[in-house]
Amino acid sequence: MSRERIAFIGTGVMGASMAGHLLAAGYPVSVYNRTKSKAEGLIEKGAVWKDSPHDAAEGADVVITILGYPSDVEAIYLGETGILSALHKDAIAIDMTTSSPLIAETIAEVGRRRGIGVLDAPVSGGDLGAREARLSIMVGGEREVFDRALPILEVMGKNIVYQGKPGAGQHTKMCNQIAIAGGMVAIGESLSYARKAGLNPEAVLQSISAGAAGSWTMSNLVPRALKGDYTPGFFVKHFVKDMKIALESAEEMELDLHGLDLAKKLFERLVNEGAADEGTQALFKLYL
Amino acid sequence: MSRERIAFIGTGVMGASMAGHLLAAGYPVSVYNRTKSKAEGLIEKGAVWKDSPHDAAEGADVVITILGYPSDVEAIYLGETGILSALHKDAIAIDMTTSSPLIAETIAEVGRRRGIGVLDAPVSGGDLGAREARLSIMVGGEREVFDRALPILEVMGKNIVYQGKPGAGQHTKMCNQIAIAGGMVAIGESLSYARKAGLNPEAVLQSISAGAAGSWTMSNLVPRALKGDYTPGFFVKHFVKDMKIALESAEEMELDLHGLDLAKKLFERLVNEGAADEGTQALFKLYL
Repeated sequence: MSRERIAFIGTGVMGASMAGHLLAAGYPVSVYNRTKSKAEGLIEKGAVWKDSPHDAAEGADVVITILGYPSDVEAIYLGETGILSALHKDAIAIDMTTSSPLIAETIAEVGRRRGIGVLDAPVSGGDLGAREARLSIMVGGEREVFDRALPILEVMGKNIVYQGKPGAGQHTKMCNQIAIAGGMVAIGESLSYARKAGLNPEAVLQSISAGAAGSWTMSNLVPRALKGDYTPGFFVKHFVKDMKIALESAEEMELDLHGLDLAKKLFERLVNEGAADEGTQALFKLYL
Repeated sequence: MSRERIAFIGTGVMGASMAGHLLAAGYPVSVYNRTKSKAEGLIEKGAVWKDSPHDAAEGADVVITILGYPSDVEAIYLGETGILSALHKDAIAIDMTTSSPLIAETIAEVGRRRGIGVLDAPVSGGDLGAREARLSIMVGGEREVFDRALPILEVMGKNIVYQGKPGAGQHTKMCNQIAIAGGMVAIGESLSYARKAGLNPEAVLQSISAGAAGSWTMSNLVPRALKGDYTPGFFVKHFVKDMKIALESAEEMELDLHGLDLAKKLFERLVNEGAADEGTQALFKLYL
């Protein structure tokens, strides 16, 4: 079987690594990015530059997108010169942006009517996961499309789970972000209690991080914050975007998420204090 | 050096395992428990039964207590026939109950005036940690007393950290419970979102538990709840007690803990619904 021609749109920190793996695996890859300079590393490795998402999608068998905001996803898929208007029948479009479940459903429905398979497949694992091709990929869409796309997803990730109908990948990513956000608030409160009680936060972490209070956040993000290191693994501004999507989506489902609501308010306060481009561990500044 | 004579008071699930390790290590151990039957296994292994905490403490070099509620601790240490009135000078008293930091400070102060070394040394790791002698022990008190007591603590635990002045052990345990409580609410909200969105919670866990949303609770308690298994690793009623201590203590320090407040209300709702004697994973019933 000849290799599918892949169009990769969105070659930021995550996308550049992911597209690089596809090139290394021997797929013919064309690329488009709003800022061309960020695609140059890939072009040097053999990717073909295209001047628009539409041009990239034309003649591709599989389009992969990983963009910034849901509005970007909507524009690039559904606009008049969007991806879905350029793809041939039986092509596959995979949006790996963390985006709105509702938009994912709409794109899937428009795709279905045109005979295009659509997956929503957001990831977790950050820039390191992307670089080391061990992202978690949470996939929504038709099972048959998932099966066809799986070999390509396996080039970029490790923990690839089919979650169900269109939108289910995005919903799963929201579950991920909800658990992280509230967990960070809990740890923040724990740190503020430690500080008020005159404890040494490092010693407290030593006592509690290996037990029932332990979490990825506690082991990985708190030590950075305690060292005053707020360099972004994951940007505050992107996390706020994700929490907004989750809360909007929860509202549509008539679900109250009080813990998430509290977390979003705190992260928005961080943005107002100028920390939008810091890593999410900046939250702990509010408590330390 | 001859082995210290240890009095062990409170031989419930945790205490029975812990006292058993001390016997196995060759310490002479006397025991007292409100319900004598729970001490019988230890008596068979060579522990000497005493008819009151006062009797047990008399002639002991080290008293260890692990009781139910702060009021029990207060009564057994500070009452007219309490432990501190029975211990000889230079003896050591170690309270391993999860109890109030303020009470720990009071006991330490009374002990100090009488020449008795006092430690507050609550644990985490549950019945399994107690059975396998790998409890985390968080210790407050005078450093010199900690150093003297360390060989005994090492018989019962693995991760033994000196946290500072009297009360610091209890404060550290509160940090532990605060992080757990809010983290459980976050996971609960994540599960309720999953349910509302029509996802399969097992598949969601598979996607998210190994990544940045991962935690001890997610890996250990959620799978039990999904199987409908609410047998107690840690009782709801005891967790509510701990959260009350934390909130009272926070209030004394003029600290607002909104996430913890929310968690306590939810666990109290569980108690009202008859789940006081279930494991803390029963929280997820409110969300699933």
